Amino acid sequence: MTLDLSKIPLDQLMYGISLGAVAMMAAAGVLEAGRKRFDLFGMVVVALAAALGGGSLRDVLLDRPVFWVADQTYLVAALIAAMLTFFLARIFALPARLFLVPDAAGLALFTISGTKAALVWGAPWLVASFMGVITGVMGGVLRDVLCNEEPLVFQGTLYATAAWAGALVFIGSMTWGLDPGQAAMAGGALIFLLRVAAIRWEIALPRFTARL
Amino acid sequence: MTLDLSKIPLDQLMYGISLGAVAMMAAAGVLEAGRKRFDLFGMVVVALAAALGGGSLRDVLLDRPVFWVADQTYLVAALIAAMLTFFLARIFALPARLFLVPDAAGLALFTISGTKAALVWGAPWLVASFMGVITGVMGGVLRDVLCNEEPLVFQGTLYATAAWAGALVFIGSMTWGLDPGQAAMAGGALIFLLRVAAIRWEIALPRFTARL
Amino acid sequence: MTLDLSKIPLDQLMYGISLGAVAMMAAAGVLEAGRKRFDLFGMVVVALAAALGGGSLRDVLLDRPVFWVADQTYLVAALIAAMLTFFLARIFALPARLFLVPDAAGLALFTISGTKAALVWGAPWLVASFMGVITGVMGGVLRDVLCNEEPLVFQGTLYATAAWAGALVFIGSMTWGLDPGQAAMAGGALIFLLRVAAIRWEIALPRFTARL
Repeated sequence: MTLDLSKIPLDQLMYGISLGAVAMMAAAGVLEAGRKRFDLFGMVVVALAAALGGGSLRDVLLDRPVFWVADQTYLVAALIAAMLTFFLARIFALPARLFLVPDAAGLALFTISGTKAALVWGAPWLVASFMGVITGVMGGVLRDVLCNEEPLVFQGTLYATAAWAGALVFIGSMTWGLDPGQAAMAGGALIFLLRVAAIRWEIALPRFTARL
Repeated sequence: MTLDLSKIPLDQLMYGISLGAVAMMAAAGVLEAGRKRFDLFGMVVVALAAALGGGSLRDVLLDRPVFWVADQTYLVAALIAAMLTFFLARIFALPARLFLVPDAAGLALFTISGTKAALVWGAPWLVASFMGVITGVMGGVLRDVLCNEEPLVFQGTLYATAAWAGALVFIGSMTWGLDPGQAAMAGGALIFLLRVAAIRWEIALPRFTARL
Repeated sequence: MTLDLSKIPLDQLMYGISLGAVAMMAAAGVLEAGRKRFDLFGMVVVALAAALGGGSLRDVLLDRPVFWVADQTYLVAALIAAMLTFFLARIFALPARLFLVPDAAGLALFTISGTKAALVWGAPWLVASFMGVITGVMGGVLRDVLCNEEPLVFQGTLYATAAWAGALVFIGSMTWGLDPGQAAMAGGALIFLLRVAAIRWEIALPRFTARL
């Protein structure tokens, strides 16, 4: 694949959305971890892991500078969102479902940007699609591992699966001649819609039950 | 130590065996994780972590390109093996013990190749032997962490210990003048035989019980 | 910030203290993990993760050579300390509290050295302070994750919080004109004293209880 990936309008426009997604995932991290009896700082660390973990793993595996180490805006955004949610949730009853739709948007954005980063690096397409999934879901996995729970993203309604489908559509539609910018939109939209639909109608993949 | 490591016939011959070991570990990962109620994709992610995790950690610690990012054949092999096992296990009652012998072969191969990679990088011998152990066992540790269970490799019959013994024999026999290829065979065979013997006769290290 | 970080007398003097801290954290790791029924080698791996995990994560995130891969003295120190504790604890009743004070010293040292490494790398101040916290506490987090328990450092009496406060004081007092060496002392002393005071008087941050 020889793609002009610089045409993807992720760079300027999506920086702001990226920050928003990081903040949203930090906030969701605080709420998800709410049943554990962590102290303020522990909660903040879990929220940061949820917000920054997937992208960090992507950057380490691709041997790129880790994004939040180079640009501290991400760290600040995640930190403020986590603190705010922590104190708000002590006063108001914030329903966890409040964050499901922004979280779906964050999943879509992270997955597409992770896939793009891997393609720019020169990774083969299947690796790139998995790198997208890692970027999108590993923050949530890390959060659950730190909370000593089974990762929700492996069990619930289409989460990693939606991310993978969107990453494949993103790559596939570029291969079939679509403009990279449009391909990113198509892949991202698919992830977002699949995830929202899965929450609404409780769509799930077949589960495994070993016959042991 | 000044060793001509290029003489080790791991490169050509072992590429195929490597792929087989990755596939086997992915399949074993699916079966081991079978009691959790993960969905298809979650199961696949756990299997990939089991198959690729140890080598990824080795490459990240040694600051080398991560092997499955550079060569997508490993990812494809692990993916096919995981999917196949997933669907076969829904139909047939696959006994987990079926995979113990190939898993021992994979442990031997991964440990020796990890030790070699660290020596080539210039790591001191003790570090190299631990890097071999990390490559061999960390996939299984990651699998168990993702499944929210205590790592089996820390408890069971000689697993990490067999890997370490083999890595030391591999390095030691080269220091004592053995041909690198023969040293690799000797170390690998020791790991395989120790592990199989440990399963057969339930050999285990002394366990720790703190007097608290 | 344009700081002459080379003036910090961490390099010569603190190498020995570093080794001591690594050894102490490995010993504490063995004791903390004592209730699990790990075998000798599993226990050693958990102790090594506790002693070397935080610094490894720091080096991987900053893309520096991993410290214990380059210099095997750290690995040897951790290994000897873990083995010794393992066998001593089978004979004598070692109280876990025995290690709390040296552990606080290790926390102080690791946090300051991690913050310094990030500043030298060129990381922004907030990132550098978090890198210090990661270096100080992630070993303990990794230990608890491998033992399948909820990370203690997120719950107990001021641990990560003490580390963060000290890192901020270290950076802040350099910005305000203090000599880097004195700033390191001030930050490190604050961490140590906060942690010891927190253990003595059971000081803790407010805990989070989500109103769900």
